[in-house]
Amino acid sequence: MSTEWERLSERLREFVRVRDWEQFHTPKNLAMALAGEVGELVAELQWLTPEESRDLDPDTLARVRAELGDVAGYLVRLADVLGVDLVEAAHAKLDESERRYDADSYRGSARKAPPLAP
Amino acid sequence: MSTEWERLSERLREFVRVRDWEQFHTPKNLAMALAGEVGELVAELQWLTPEESRDLDPDTLARVRAELGDVAGYLVRLADVLGVDLVEAAHAKLDESERRYDADSYRGSARKAPPLAP
Amino acid sequence: MSTEWERLSERLREFVRVRDWEQFHTPKNLAMALAGEVGELVAELQWLTPEESRDLDPDTLARVRAELGDVAGYLVRLADVLGVDLVEAAHAKLDESERRYDADSYRGSARKAPPLAP
Amino acid sequence: MSTEWERLSERLREFVRVRDWEQFHTPKNLAMALAGEVGELVAELQWLTPEESRDLDPDTLARVRAELGDVAGYLVRLADVLGVDLVEAAHAKLDESERRYDADSYRGSARKAPPLAP
Repeated sequence: MSTEWERLSERLREFVRVRDWEQFHTPKNLAMALAGEVGELVAELQWLTPEESRDLDPDTLARVRAELGDVAGYLVRLADVLGVDLVEAAHAKLDESERRYDADSYRGSARKAPPLAP
Repeated sequence: MSTEWERLSERLREFVRVRDWEQFHTPKNLAMALAGEVGELVAELQWLTPEESRDLDPDTLARVRAELGDVAGYLVRLADVLGVDLVEAAHAKLDESERRYDADSYRGSARKAPPLAP
Repeated sequence: MSTEWERLSERLREFVRVRDWEQFHTPKNLAMALAGEVGELVAELQWLTPEESRDLDPDTLARVRAELGDVAGYLVRLADVLGVDLVEAAHAKLDESERRYDADSYRGSARKAPPLAP
Repeated sequence: MSTEWERLSERLREFVRVRDWEQFHTPKNLAMALAGEVGELVAELQWLTPEESRDLDPDTLARVRAELGDVAGYLVRLADVLGVDLVEAAHAKLDESERRYDADSYRGSARKAPPLAP
């Protein structure tokens, strides 16, 4: 795993350990926590147009940034308890998406085939 | 941003650029895509007990790993279009959680105060 | 509970009973299942503009309708195992929203105060 | 649509109309609002065991009931703007699930085939 993410993972691991919270941090529970935080993130953007969401006012951006931090924290923690290397997993999915959505066929289109993959 | 995540961000940026998909990748749309992928991740674990979720069979773990890759990809992409440094945002939230949940008061308890923060 | 929803609840109860699935249908698991189905619903609309989402092509509408059916099914089932009357709960929240968002102050605005309540 | 749900739908329609919020209530935005509320519901149950979630203390149950009300409100509203009859849609999916998961093959098992459908 990458150095910076390994460092974040370790900090989270220690944060949880000294509070004796490992008992709560099962993959199932952490997936729920992740869903809860993503729900808060989505709620910040729900009434904005797509264009407005590109140009957030400073207060909204600060709240969105905080939610992104929560989401990243739970995601890194979940990957850690499962022993999954997040960066590798993301590259592996991107390899697959590059094969599946060749640039010529899918250029400019979210209709022909929904670009489900990033 | 960290070297490894900057590299993933850049690869995603290029993947999107050559397909002319920037038009779809607004923060609003990407937050929805993130919610969709987290939904798939949650669905993998929904009928398992918390204990079972700690010890996934190889097929389930492979699917969970793929979903984690999708979630990480959309999260990194969303942070990128918003200009947010994910690692910094996660550390900032963890700073806050360390102040808010002091180890002595919250040790072993998810009841007294739900440890909403990672 | 309403006649029609009581009927749906009872049908779900029987569906689960004959398959001996009550053991899986805890509130926690059903909340995850609900989140998974809502994720699928969100994914159907993620790349559309808000305007496009008002005018779905027949295939997308059919898929969205099917997802709405899944979401409704899990929601009714979750309320049933918790002994909550969904219709009453929704009216109670709407009572609260009517008090909180008086029509004159919030007319036409999703900015001043996000209309989090339906 | 059923009488009770038609009544709730109509009350929501009027609530939105007098506030001039129809402009925000596109299917896309309502799907996001639904995801946000489901996230709050999931968060209430995230650290509980499945067994604990069957036997909620009165405060948690009151919060869960309120979240169920929010989820039901947005779901009914979303179905309404799309012109979908929720009760019919749920029964249609249940018809399908009865065919797909015959009772003898799937009895007692969430493993052999995840009972994704209620």
